[in-house]
Amino acid sequence: MLEDTEVRLGHGSGGVMMKRLIDGLFLEEFADEAALPGDDAAVVTLGSQRISMSCDSFVVTPAFFPGGDIGRLAVCGTVNDVATSGAKVSYLSCGFIIEEGFPLDDLRRICKSMAQAASEANVAIVTGDTKVVERGHADGIFINTCGVGVVPQGIDLSAKHILPGDKVLLSGTLGDHGITVMSQREGLGFSTSLKSDAAPLNHLIQAVLEAAPHTRCFRDPTRGGLSSTLNEFAASAGVDIEIQENAIPVLDEVRGACEMLGYDVYQVANEGKMVAVVPAEEASAALLAMRTSPYGANAAIIGDVVAERHDGRPLVRLQTAFGSSRILDMLVGEQLPRIC
Amino acid sequence: MLEDTEVRLGHGSGGVMMKRLIDGLFLEEFADEAALPGDDAAVVTLGSQRISMSCDSFVVTPAFFPGGDIGRLAVCGTVNDVATSGAKVSYLSCGFIIEEGFPLDDLRRICKSMAQAASEANVAIVTGDTKVVERGHADGIFINTCGVGVVPQGIDLSAKHILPGDKVLLSGTLGDHGITVMSQREGLGFSTSLKSDAAPLNHLIQAVLEAAPHTRCFRDPTRGGLSSTLNEFAASAGVDIEIQENAIPVLDEVRGACEMLGYDVYQVANEGKMVAVVPAEEASAALLAMRTSPYGANAAIIGDVVAERHDGRPLVRLQTAFGSSRILDMLVGEQLPRIC
Repeated sequence: MLEDTEVRLGHGSGGVMMKRLIDGLFLEEFADEAALPGDDAAVVTLGSQRISMSCDSFVVTPAFFPGGDIGRLAVCGTVNDVATSGAKVSYLSCGFIIEEGFPLDDLRRICKSMAQAASEANVAIVTGDTKVVERGHADGIFINTCGVGVVPQGIDLSAKHILPGDKVLLSGTLGDHGITVMSQREGLGFSTSLKSDAAPLNHLIQAVLEAAPHTRCFRDPTRGGLSSTLNEFAASAGVDIEIQENAIPVLDEVRGACEMLGYDVYQVANEGKMVAVVPAEEASAALLAMRTSPYGANAAIIGDVVAERHDGRPLVRLQTAFGSSRILDMLVGEQLPRIC
Repeated sequence: MLEDTEVRLGHGSGGVMMKRLIDGLFLEEFADEAALPGDDAAVVTLGSQRISMSCDSFVVTPAFFPGGDIGRLAVCGTVNDVATSGAKVSYLSCGFIIEEGFPLDDLRRICKSMAQAASEANVAIVTGDTKVVERGHADGIFINTCGVGVVPQGIDLSAKHILPGDKVLLSGTLGDHGITVMSQREGLGFSTSLKSDAAPLNHLIQAVLEAAPHTRCFRDPTRGGLSSTLNEFAASAGVDIEIQENAIPVLDEVRGACEMLGYDVYQVANEGKMVAVVPAEEASAALLAMRTSPYGANAAIIGDVVAERHDGRPLVRLQTAFGSSRILDMLVGEQLPRIC
């Protein structure tokens, strides 16, 4: 049930409030079987093939930041979402909503960045739309992208397929994107050499699928971070997940910034990382595939799937470096607005 | 060449400035063969099939108006764009950008309206995304939809196929949507019983294609109105187009409002009308198919395609009711911002 009467920032957080909005409104009104499994992309039958389709709007502020910009995010974010289904991502649409007065040089820079990311991902931007709204009625530029691709026969990835005994893999360091964007915000500015990790991971996913053909599922831990991703996995499959703090790669600068600002690094957004769940016997092969991929050098096996043991409340548990453990909860409310 | 340094309202107008932005920036950066023909939807090969793909963002203000709302527009607009390729439209994505504080009751009303329009069009909304931005950084709600469908074998619709001797058909009255939305604006309010024409026209298009299998192309005259559509047709095919004022259905109230406000009805946006170009020998059959369709009761044959005769400058000419004629130009600048 939705208890609010107004949309709040937390409804876009990737956490508990957003889940309530999706379950209590969107799924109620739009309920379609393809949308129900709760995965990042819809897999549907189109003519004689199964295709994967996913869209995302990007409202990040500032629009330019170390390691990327809103254009690179808009391509990588949607490519990654479609790719999590195992699809070969082929085409993107691109819708711009631009505030009157936005510099055309910035728009061109964003388009060049989109074209470069698309080229890297080997996808084509084939259709688009531009709307311009009056000064003060938007915030610079918003971009929506939608991606499609064919899901090869025999591929059926879903968090529902996760089983006790499976291993959880993470393709690299946590929190780089979220902390980088925060470090650029007026008023919150702090000095850092961090860069956003925004990257297209469709080739990494294909490499893992070849090496570990029984991979259960992928998800990119964007809004809501690793915590939301793992909690969604646990809930979908009715399992517990245990992860090891020692095993999770985090840059010192990110860890320091999180301590300073009071953020939980497991809830910070990433834009170039992938979480995969694979059967234990294929975990080493999957890890090697990640590590040999251009964006997976720091990949690690970070935890295990175990049977659910709390009376129908699937949990994610973090074993800390000190031997204690704590529950890793989904974000409640909004932590870092406008991060993507 | 782009002469401006900033994005201006006219860059989203559907007219000359928008064409310059598309040609001088987007096509330069994203150039892809599928996007080049200048049609409303991209037709591309996906796996073993040809699919059609098109996206649109909707920023209309006010969000609710007689005859529809931003949700109905967001479904119908994209369904119609994809359908112009002759595709069987199957799936939509839906991305919301919502301003903090937007009433959840209004959001639910918009979703219900989207679901109803989707049901009428027989398409499914299968994937979505929600972003929330702080108060003052958007304007209520913006919606982006992207649609896909399979293009049946043998169907190849494009304005490039238009030939001298072809007939131009219009599926109903001009200007209803644009004038309805304007009548609701604060400060410009005037009393009218007009309603927006927002409607899904995919079934109408299929009916025309069955009745007139050699139809050259379809386009819905949204931003920029009939003038932009016909000028785009003329330029794509290198032909002149002559239309008869007497033959073009316009409601008295729309005509009166245009005179009062100084608008050219041929440049006002429509959201439930379709323009078709068909060979002369199939024109009667196409007209009958339109008229027997739920949204085509007032369909008419409004003009003719003739050979281009001004040294490589394709023109659209309007024969007035008084026997004179005038050139129908594309909109320059912005006439009615935030109309869709």
